[in-house]
Amino acid sequence: MTSPDLYAVLMAGGSGTRFWPASRRARPKQFLPIGGEQPMLTTTAHRLGDLVPTERLLVSTGIPYRAEVQRLLPELPEQNILAEPLARNTLPCLVWAAREIERRAPGSLQVTLAADHVIEPAEEFRDSLRAAAQAAGDGSLVTLGIRPTRPATGYGYIEVGEQLSPHEARTDSAPVHPVHPVHIVRRFVEKPDANLAAEFLASGNFLWNSGMFIWRTDAFLAAVERWCPELAPLADIDGTSSPSKIESAFAALPSLSVDVGLMERADNVLVLPVDYTWNDVGSWSALPGVSAADESGNFTSGGAQLISEQSTGCVVHGEEGELVALLGVEDLVVVRAGRTTLVCPRERAEEVRAIVAALEARAPEHL
Amino acid sequence: MTSPDLYAVLMAGGSGTRFWPASRRARPKQFLPIGGEQPMLTTTAHRLGDLVPTERLLVSTGIPYRAEVQRLLPELPEQNILAEPLARNTLPCLVWAAREIERRAPGSLQVTLAADHVIEPAEEFRDSLRAAAQAAGDGSLVTLGIRPTRPATGYGYIEVGEQLSPHEARTDSAPVHPVHPVHIVRRFVEKPDANLAAEFLASGNFLWNSGMFIWRTDAFLAAVERWCPELAPLADIDGTSSPSKIESAFAALPSLSVDVGLMERADNVLVLPVDYTWNDVGSWSALPGVSAADESGNFTSGGAQLISEQSTGCVVHGEEGELVALLGVEDLVVVRAGRTTLVCPRERAEEVRAIVAALEARAPEHL
Repeated sequence: MTSPDLYAVLMAGGSGTRFWPASRRARPKQFLPIGGEQPMLTTTAHRLGDLVPTERLLVSTGIPYRAEVQRLLPELPEQNILAEPLARNTLPCLVWAAREIERRAPGSLQVTLAADHVIEPAEEFRDSLRAAAQAAGDGSLVTLGIRPTRPATGYGYIEVGEQLSPHEARTDSAPVHPVHPVHIVRRFVEKPDANLAAEFLASGNFLWNSGMFIWRTDAFLAAVERWCPELAPLADIDGTSSPSKIESAFAALPSLSVDVGLMERADNVLVLPVDYTWNDVGSWSALPGVSAADESGNFTSGGAQLISEQSTGCVVHGEEGELVALLGVEDLVVVRAGRTTLVCPRERAEEVRAIVAALEARAPEHL
Repeated sequence: MTSPDLYAVLMAGGSGTRFWPASRRARPKQFLPIGGEQPMLTTTAHRLGDLVPTERLLVSTGIPYRAEVQRLLPELPEQNILAEPLARNTLPCLVWAAREIERRAPGSLQVTLAADHVIEPAEEFRDSLRAAAQAAGDGSLVTLGIRPTRPATGYGYIEVGEQLSPHEARTDSAPVHPVHPVHIVRRFVEKPDANLAAEFLASGNFLWNSGMFIWRTDAFLAAVERWCPELAPLADIDGTSSPSKIESAFAALPSLSVDVGLMERADNVLVLPVDYTWNDVGSWSALPGVSAADESGNFTSGGAQLISEQSTGCVVHGEEGELVALLGVEDLVVVRAGRTTLVCPRERAEEVRAIVAALEARAPEHL
């Protein structure tokens, strides 16, 4: 018996403002080179290596971003872009993708990945996908849980339950790096406060909820049918459905995340603990977590050149050809994009939404 | 007897780096809209109003800046631009200009102005020139001394001596605003330290050396002949001299400022105290002295739009169409120019030279 095909679905539909001014309405974070040289979507696709060939790579995005996806992944077949007419959070687009995968190759395995996370090293990441795929073979819904390295309050957590029988993935595609055995999920926990996060870290029994999932498409769709009656309008939608049919279906759906809508309801959820570097890079202040400081202790991304005099701890983002000069400043975020410049303290980078709100009224052309 | 013609010489040859990155080798401060809407050279020319018609306005600059002067003052006759082949500080170019004025209209009055100072209001400024011109009628070398408003350490000072007979300039061109009587200059003082500057301010007997002068060209040239033998190579240079002759003459000259080279040596120097707003805008940190704060307490120049959230005391410069967004920062300088961005604390703005020095080695294309 050959192992089922492994498909990957990259979720690239986000429209966040936390990376303004580099991220714009027309070019959200997943299309930017945050924390690297290449746009995050491109890096995410390449990170899969030959584990998932291009013809089995699907990208879920919004209609306004279809062209940008094509530009960044020119090798991707056009029918592998599933462009939602309406944003309905993560679960509906994954159901749509699963139905399309089922149409093409029933009983395949579906890896779900965000297109805007930093993960390293790629080899360990692929090993974990292989292990998770094996664990998903029995119809379980498998999520990857990141071993926490600090009491983060910005992530959801997974409490780890009973360990399943030791999982020795010594097959033909044996991992080079050791992987952990899978566990039953005891519960999902929303973003905790600082005290609770410290408890979670100390207990050793909690993992960060990475938003990466592996399941058999048939098992996933069966679980959705059982636990998510509100997604019934997607019952006969796949990649070949007409735009008007898709739009009608999406218009009838609630917004529903895969965590809240399915993982917290289902009874066959497993978690695979992993301990490679993972960061969802939630704002400019997360950049130091995913890129190395230069010799002056500053962090750059996007290709801009930094000249620093007696300045340290700063996060600088700008395109190649841009120069940012810092003199006598510490722990600032300086972002240059288009005709716009943002300056704020690192610890307030998440408040950039206040700027975006002000722009709505005063200078919407810069959004 | 008609009064002599009044000529103005605008000194626009500076090549400073204190306004980098807005100022570049190719576009120093006098060509930028520092503290206003228009380039400082343009504002300086317009500030003279109809006191000096364009045909009697000369601009002293360097050869690399001739085209920029023409672009900013298109109405200026080409022969009114005196472009030095070599920078030799202020005195040689003023001698050259005086010889050209003498050639055109012997015995004229020559007003000398820097092209990169902020002065307000223009009407009071013109009144002071009229009064100084009257005082210069007897062959005195007259300088304008600014009544200090704070113990500045960045300016030279003039100690005021005996007052000449009260000067009631009630002629046809009577000033609307009262002007002070002229005084003998007791001495010129180099930039003082903070203690000395405080003494100067308290004494009431010291003025800021503005670098603005009024003299009869014949009296000035006679004084130069007497006190400045090192300027003999300029003896037969005027605006009609060939470029090679000018270059030979300048090559034979030392660098010499009008203060050190002539005013501190001559025995017929007078000072006219004035108390309008004057600022040589020595660096970005001087901008709050010459422009009004917006409702958030920040200062902008150059036409850029500022969006400020919980930020105050910042100096922002950028071209029209640029947007600078500040969130939670205080007393920063943020300058956007070309493909370059500078961020530094206001009190360290003068140290931008350190950045420029670093660029010499690492990214000279941004100078």
